[in-house]
Amino acid sequence: MLGRLNHVAIAVRDAEKAARIYGAAFDAEISAAVPLPEHGVITVFVTLPNTKIEFIQPLGDNSPIAKFVERNADGGIHHICYDVPDIIATRDKLIKDGARVLGDGAPKIGAHGKPVLFFHPKDFSGALVEIEQA
Amino acid sequence: MLGRLNHVAIAVRDAEKAARIYGAAFDAEISAAVPLPEHGVITVFVTLPNTKIEFIQPLGDNSPIAKFVERNADGGIHHICYDVPDIIATRDKLIKDGARVLGDGAPKIGAHGKPVLFFHPKDFSGALVEIEQA
Repeated sequence: MLGRLNHVAIAVRDAEKAARIYGAAFDAEISAAVPLPEHGVITVFVTLPNTKIEFIQPLGDNSPIAKFVERNADGGIHHICYDVPDIIATRDKLIKDGARVLGDGAPKIGAHGKPVLFFHPKDFSGALVEIEQA
Repeated sequence: MLGRLNHVAIAVRDAEKAARIYGAAFDAEISAAVPLPEHGVITVFVTLPNTKIEFIQPLGDNSPIAKFVERNADGGIHHICYDVPDIIATRDKLIKDGARVLGDGAPKIGAHGKPVLFFHPKDFSGALVEIEQA
């Protein structure tokens, strides 16, 4: 049911700057910055051999990560994204098991052009979980 | 210089319980619980197709994650571990670049029987970074 770890997301005030630091430290490939207005973030990806690190910075007045970045001025690990083969089937199973989906439960299109959903950190050991249609 | 993402670690009060929740939700393989007295933690790994999630719980009176788990009663994402081909060369490069190594800078043996080191979260966008000899 669970696929690959798609990415780990780190929320920061300046995603490009943070990605450059990782890129220089680890000689890793960095993507262009992509604004995702529907999600209220700007994203930059650092590519590792087996997965990605996603840097996100707040975009717009109602960014869902604005408070997180205020609370964590240096930045912080924000969420973990897993690939799933069938996002609707996984959503329904997790909800049946008692996990709380964020928003209205309808998948939105994420940074990779695929449907994504988020689940409440309290239901996953304090880790905000994103699932993405593989 | 940077290798694979070895694991993402989630600190919790009960590592086996947390791993079971993830295992059931995602039908993933769970390791046995392994106490690491030198690191002050008990570890349980959940295996994904491309990497691992490590659940850690405090062990002993001076566990370095005791305060984190006190502050984050539900648990929380604690660190990210990267494989590196040469831990000493990577350590020296990161220190030269201005990153702060934790402890005395001498690698300890980690959960996989290989040398590991930690770097200060303030130097990596608020994310505690572990490097492990690949």
